[in-house]
Amino acid sequence: MSIELISSVRSFSGQQQQYRHHSSTLNCSMHFSVYLPQGADSEQGHHFPVLYWLSGLTCTDANFSQKAGAQRMAAELGIVLVVPDTSPRGEDVADDPSYDLGQGAGFYVNATQDPWKQHYRMYDYIVEELPALIEGNFPVNQRRAISGHSMGGHGALVIGLRNPERYTSISAFSPICNPIACPWGEKALGAYLGAETTHWEEYDASVLVGRAINHRPILVSQGDKDEFLEQQLRPEALQMAAEVCGYPIRFEHHGGYDHSYYFIASFIEEHLRFHADFLLKNDHSDS
Amino acid sequence: MSIELISSVRSFSGQQQQYRHHSSTLNCSMHFSVYLPQGADSEQGHHFPVLYWLSGLTCTDANFSQKAGAQRMAAELGIVLVVPDTSPRGEDVADDPSYDLGQGAGFYVNATQDPWKQHYRMYDYIVEELPALIEGNFPVNQRRAISGHSMGGHGALVIGLRNPERYTSISAFSPICNPIACPWGEKALGAYLGAETTHWEEYDASVLVGRAINHRPILVSQGDKDEFLEQQLRPEALQMAAEVCGYPIRFEHHGGYDHSYYFIASFIEEHLRFHADFLLKNDHSDS
Repeated sequence: MSIELISSVRSFSGQQQQYRHHSSTLNCSMHFSVYLPQGADSEQGHHFPVLYWLSGLTCTDANFSQKAGAQRMAAELGIVLVVPDTSPRGEDVADDPSYDLGQGAGFYVNATQDPWKQHYRMYDYIVEELPALIEGNFPVNQRRAISGHSMGGHGALVIGLRNPERYTSISAFSPICNPIACPWGEKALGAYLGAETTHWEEYDASVLVGRAINHRPILVSQGDKDEFLEQQLRPEALQMAAEVCGYPIRFEHHGGYDHSYYFIASFIEEHLRFHADFLLKNDHSDS
Repeated sequence: MSIELISSVRSFSGQQQQYRHHSSTLNCSMHFSVYLPQGADSEQGHHFPVLYWLSGLTCTDANFSQKAGAQRMAAELGIVLVVPDTSPRGEDVADDPSYDLGQGAGFYVNATQDPWKQHYRMYDYIVEELPALIEGNFPVNQRRAISGHSMGGHGALVIGLRNPERYTSISAFSPICNPIACPWGEKALGAYLGAETTHWEEYDASVLVGRAINHRPILVSQGDKDEFLEQQLRPEALQMAAEVCGYPIRFEHHGGYDHSYYFIASFIEEHLRFHADFLLKNDHSDS
């Protein structure tokens, strides 16, 4: 489980770093970014909790790191940020000319169909391999939260709902809430998982919320000027499912905001404070 | 003086906007970005002060808008941010294959040499045309501050030092402090102004600081892991010149920081608060 440091830049008294490693799950070389608050960039004995951020269509680990302005609050609260790429990458990795399938569009699923199944296993990568890598190489504890945007908001909700024992809290900006019933989801889930739609339900937050037994706190933020709101995101499906089954999701609707990183930057402090309440509660992780 | 709105996106309860206009100074079409805090995006009678931000080599108006995280404090303090492009642009505009001359590298001078002099008049554009345009189209008052990064830090220092009556305060991140004596400056000033180096001095902050009569407050922030520090930036030349002539420049040296926007993002709050002290002092601009 070796990782190779590509760059390390000081940010808010900590370090913003990028790494490369070989992923055995994805069967290719992968990049990820890490923000280490002051004290986490050296061996001082303290172990920090981690927020995993899953990005949206076409993004890499760079977009959130450069545009969200999350380091300021991560530094203040003492939270490590881990930002993976959005899909397997490379010349040997299957791809598609469109932006919403193939590289940059992993949708955080384990593909079962050709030509995708050889590499497209982002679900296992995020749930298993990446946390093991982070916990083996950085001064972090096993308190994890998960968040993301758009396709990554979908990923955060799905992964958090299916693995409540692994995450203290879940949040999402502008998530694809009901992918089995929107064009992005139908295209990607059909390609990666095949025509049998019952398999798709394992990756649909609006379905999974009704199956959840162990409830984790969830915060969802949505702008009402989001250009993808009605056709692709369908937050009303998740909100209705949560109400029906009594899952206490905190929905925040923000007037005038769109789908961009300007929206994320405006409310990332609120999301980090939300996660901090759970990540840092009864924190006896100091060694 | 008509301007055309290209985009408007909500950010921290205000609006992040991009505009296009025809510049009579630069003789081409130009883009600029504006951040309007809440209340400045509608006609409510209040007039806001403005911080002009000048970006560095290869940048457009997008880099600072997306990466600096300045909107949060601009919203809190009630300051309009105006971010111009770094040079004239277009197919008809002279250019050079290298990144440090031509488009993206205007160095905020009025060129006197062929083929540059037809368009490369960024000094006049920033000092005269752009403020007139902003003050004619937005609810702003005539309190202006100026800041910038690298080549734009040079621009902010030069323009502020030469026009103290127009700016309340001046700041710079990692500025090119002594362009007449560094490779970037020698190349650009030689091309734009010709071989006679006495003309270059009008665009050298370390020379101008000694000629300044009306002193405005200046803040300069510099990281000590900046890859351009010794060869290109030469802050010691400005610091020494300021000490010799008794100009009270506040220099801040930050350990571990490099030349990137991660450095700017870490200290933009401090710069905005510095300018706010002067921009908002005795503010009777409410109508």
